[in-house]
Amino acid sequence: MTTKVALLGFGIVGKGTYRALTQNAAEIERKTGKRIEVARILEKNPAVIESGLAPKELFTQDFESILADPEIKIVAEIIGGTEPATTFMLRALKAGKHVVTPNKAVIAANYDMFRRTAAENGVQIRYEASVGGAIPVIETIRKSLVANRITKIQGIVNGTTNYILTKMEEEGLPYETALKQAQANGFAEQDPTADVEGIDSANKLSILIAECFGVYIHPRDIDRTGITQITRDDLRLATQHSCKLKLLASAEFKEDGSVEAFVRPTEVSSESPLAAVRNEFNGILISCNMADKIFLSGRGAGMDPTGSAMAADIISLA
Amino acid sequence: MTTKVALLGFGIVGKGTYRALTQNAAEIERKTGKRIEVARILEKNPAVIESGLAPKELFTQDFESILADPEIKIVAEIIGGTEPATTFMLRALKAGKHVVTPNKAVIAANYDMFRRTAAENGVQIRYEASVGGAIPVIETIRKSLVANRITKIQGIVNGTTNYILTKMEEEGLPYETALKQAQANGFAEQDPTADVEGIDSANKLSILIAECFGVYIHPRDIDRTGITQITRDDLRLATQHSCKLKLLASAEFKEDGSVEAFVRPTEVSSESPLAAVRNEFNGILISCNMADKIFLSGRGAGMDPTGSAMAADIISLA
Repeated sequence: MTTKVALLGFGIVGKGTYRALTQNAAEIERKTGKRIEVARILEKNPAVIESGLAPKELFTQDFESILADPEIKIVAEIIGGTEPATTFMLRALKAGKHVVTPNKAVIAANYDMFRRTAAENGVQIRYEASVGGAIPVIETIRKSLVANRITKIQGIVNGTTNYILTKMEEEGLPYETALKQAQANGFAEQDPTADVEGIDSANKLSILIAECFGVYIHPRDIDRTGITQITRDDLRLATQHSCKLKLLASAEFKEDGSVEAFVRPTEVSSESPLAAVRNEFNGILISCNMADKIFLSGRGAGMDPTGSAMAADIISLA
Repeated sequence: MTTKVALLGFGIVGKGTYRALTQNAAEIERKTGKRIEVARILEKNPAVIESGLAPKELFTQDFESILADPEIKIVAEIIGGTEPATTFMLRALKAGKHVVTPNKAVIAANYDMFRRTAAENGVQIRYEASVGGAIPVIETIRKSLVANRITKIQGIVNGTTNYILTKMEEEGLPYETALKQAQANGFAEQDPTADVEGIDSANKLSILIAECFGVYIHPRDIDRTGITQITRDDLRLATQHSCKLKLLASAEFKEDGSVEAFVRPTEVSSESPLAAVRNEFNGILISCNMADKIFLSGRGAGMDPTGSAMAADIISLA
């Protein structure tokens, strides 16, 4: 059985998703009996279209033709940003197509609306790739821990800030130098605000809170402190306390039904598995009432890891 | 929708499975819309039946009545050992019932037969709880990494031996003392052979190899060394090498299509997340071609963690 998919955008994650679906197609068919066909790619950049990474005839600049194609059952939104991503996802859901996205900002800002629109149209919206990249955190919360009451979730969910803090600690670099190194190595954007101010982590934490506790908190309502004020002294102090300083995204479900959530540089005991998450890696620790503590870590970003998670969601929907 | 389940056996894991399904029933229904009813429990021990942990009227000593009940769609085998567990599982599959089990020895010894019998009868056999307890390793391999070619899997999959090695290292205990402490704390059986000789790890590795590479290797054909000859000097040497000595279960898929597999005390670099897996905890590191490395850790045994994984499989089948 072949399922047709459209990719909206062919940037880093678009290419990774395409690679995961095509390069490992035989593996996917052996394991699941399913064939996934990337039928259309919405992209207007001529350099990308001519790059040879995907056959030229797949590219289109016409979103309406994707919407109108009844054979396309799944739309992968990989444009990024707020618009037209939000509009495209809503229109795809309303057209009866499943939507898969790594777009944490858009999902976090409109969690309820997307879930409701999907349910109303008998389709699903999936976003495993939006938190922790290749790490199967949403699948673990939804499926593997389904028979648990989750009490707390703590994560290092932003690779940029973890890279910077690791370099500051291990190499004694000041913040500005570590940030420049992260930018030079492709782990930080030229405008690093969303990462270093904790905005990206708050978006991801908002999604994790909804998944773990069934409660939606808008990212702007999460108590948030970034890492721009962190000094080498803060890192030395953490070391003296047998801790590592990490930008922690944390949420705890309280007895009274409230959720205590924050994104904040936090001293993590060196006995915690979170302390061992170095450089650009992500890690998430889930506490619950039957399984106790489950820890997951891996690459939280990048072409292939994010493509791997996008492909898993697409295959699962197929 | 209510799905009826029978539990075969009401020992440690049976009680954990029952607790996960009943104590968190409201949570399960909120998340999935499903109700799971434990309809029958096969158990003959009067002390267990009278324990009050489950209503007395659920207990039966008659396996045939469970097989004959068309309303029971899922059978959870939690008797342990080889027989009657193997026979009961095969008969349940042939009667058109899904089977869930934590029984690694039986699954590893008969992997192909169980999978084939299930397929022939249009049902499934699930065993997430058989490797890594609460850790969602099989789900991650099958679903989250479906678009990956897995190249290598390495795990600390036996809590008893990891507890002993941790105590030997951190407290400088000799092997025999650490083993006695593990027994006193409930982390080792009175006859610890299957754990300390690496037999349990080889069973789990056999299952992981089949899941990762689609190749079946009988546990007896896996090169295996236990921890009974490990001395404090070996642990000191590992420390000098900036390593931790761990009983590692490892399998690598080679270019020529062969699998190189072993269970063996191995020096693990302190930079590996496996080095941070202490005491009775388990950890598994999966290397693959898109997601790179994914690390999972948590409790590999015990009533509630194993019950959590059993319940997840049961709910997923429902």
